[in-house]
Amino acid sequence: MRTVYVNGEYLPETEATVSIFDRGFLMADAVYEVTSVLGGKLIDFAGHLARLERSLNELDIKKPVAFEDLLDIHRELVRVNEIGDGLVYLQVTRGSDGDRDFIFPDAETTEPTLVLFTQAKPGLADDPVAKKGIRVISIEDIRWGRRDIKTVQLLYPSMGKMMAKKAGCDDAWMVEDGHVTEGTSNNAYIVKGNKIITRQLSNEILHGITRAAVLRFASEAQMEVEERAFTIDEAKAADEAFVTSASNFVMPVVEIDGVALSDGVPGRIVKRLREIYLDESLKAAL
Amino acid sequence: MRTVYVNGEYLPETEATVSIFDRGFLMADAVYEVTSVLGGKLIDFAGHLARLERSLNELDIKKPVAFEDLLDIHRELVRVNEIGDGLVYLQVTRGSDGDRDFIFPDAETTEPTLVLFTQAKPGLADDPVAKKGIRVISIEDIRWGRRDIKTVQLLYPSMGKMMAKKAGCDDAWMVEDGHVTEGTSNNAYIVKGNKIITRQLSNEILHGITRAAVLRFASEAQMEVEERAFTIDEAKAADEAFVTSASNFVMPVVEIDGVALSDGVPGRIVKRLREIYLDESLKAAL
Repeated sequence: MRTVYVNGEYLPETEATVSIFDRGFLMADAVYEVTSVLGGKLIDFAGHLARLERSLNELDIKKPVAFEDLLDIHRELVRVNEIGDGLVYLQVTRGSDGDRDFIFPDAETTEPTLVLFTQAKPGLADDPVAKKGIRVISIEDIRWGRRDIKTVQLLYPSMGKMMAKKAGCDDAWMVEDGHVTEGTSNNAYIVKGNKIITRQLSNEILHGITRAAVLRFASEAQMEVEERAFTIDEAKAADEAFVTSASNFVMPVVEIDGVALSDGVPGRIVKRLREIYLDESLKAAL
Repeated sequence: MRTVYVNGEYLPETEATVSIFDRGFLMADAVYEVTSVLGGKLIDFAGHLARLERSLNELDIKKPVAFEDLLDIHRELVRVNEIGDGLVYLQVTRGSDGDRDFIFPDAETTEPTLVLFTQAKPGLADDPVAKKGIRVISIEDIRWGRRDIKTVQLLYPSMGKMMAKKAGCDDAWMVEDGHVTEGTSNNAYIVKGNKIITRQLSNEILHGITRAAVLRFASEAQMEVEERAFTIDEAKAADEAFVTSASNFVMPVVEIDGVALSDGVPGRIVKRLREIYLDESLKAAL
């Protein structure tokens, strides 16, 4: 039985609830973060907190607790649930004034809702899937226009994962005006020659914390990086492809819409990037 | 203290909760309906249930209970909360298998979540706002592409209502490629000459239950109706404008982006449509 955190209390997971009037439940008025845990330590924690602050600011949602306290809560959940490798999920909603209205409740008197829980993923960094890579399909990107804010409006990404599953694949890349935006819950990359290509930051994609770290490590390792949109056809003709996310780190993509890349096995550059990312992130883990 | 309904139980509103793992809370994986109550009777109930069924089908969410039972629950909530005029809100989520995953939980073993509550709105049909009309601003429509499914992904409509409030107005009309899609929680109409113009049904707009009824009544009253997209400029040059929704019925719009319509007072046609809609809907109320 997991222990989870809800608004100041540590509770058994089966007793963890929120009001039906919570705006996270009624209106998807909520943002979230997922932080990886490796060897009991938090990966890229400062990055996730910085993005959380940005998401909250964009939506005018109050900070639920001081950010120092968030680190303590993360660590306490990792400790009591004995998480070696896994994830910590955090969600902040605008809370509730006890009824439903499109107009935001008074921020002076309405406390945001804060929920955290862990997911154990033993061997997360040695995921056998990373050794063979994943296969993706492309789907149209019909999400809202502020994908830079990490809201819980995840119905379409969830539908996209189901479309991939039905097609016998692992994930979907979303395409808008012919160009790949990102995966359902990760940033998308291709490699052409020795160049790593990934879409530039904008409101169209999530500002991935793992993305920022991977691009920094790639530059430090003298790898060539180009930030620009690429088409799905360009992706199918690439030498390698991969995705990055907090929970999958750097994950090779070996097939797009049935077209095999790099002979259907993870390529040289993605394997190296995964190693570098895991090595460097572990050094800085909290 | 209201009595609300959650998964088979009638509860005091302060005790009404859902699991933090509910997909309605974590992923906006949920749909809803709002039915008006006038004189203790449900307005357009069959229409709302038909749309609920459509929304559930589009998302592969199971029916939580037989639809006959939903009528009983609506009536019981109206009775115990002594609702003369008001609303009944209903939400169905895909439920939860006790953890978070983008992949849908097994529908065989995962029950959907069903929540209903009432909101008392005494004098709803005689809302003084309807006598003077509302003022709207236009904002860009950046919502997802399946607005025909009535999901709880209402963050942007909620932000739109806040933008209107900050501008000293009542609501916002959303504009995509120069054309009005709809209001934040209602369908949008203009009147030019004697012709009522409203956007045709598609995935771009909600298939309003009040919209369908109003267009039917308008045709029966020999009023001319044209279903097509109109631009925001065309709207500002219109003779009249209005919105329709379950909670506001037919509501005059007397100003768009600071431009007064029909001398800033509700026009002849919208006043007549509101009368017809209320008369006819009350006759058919359940």
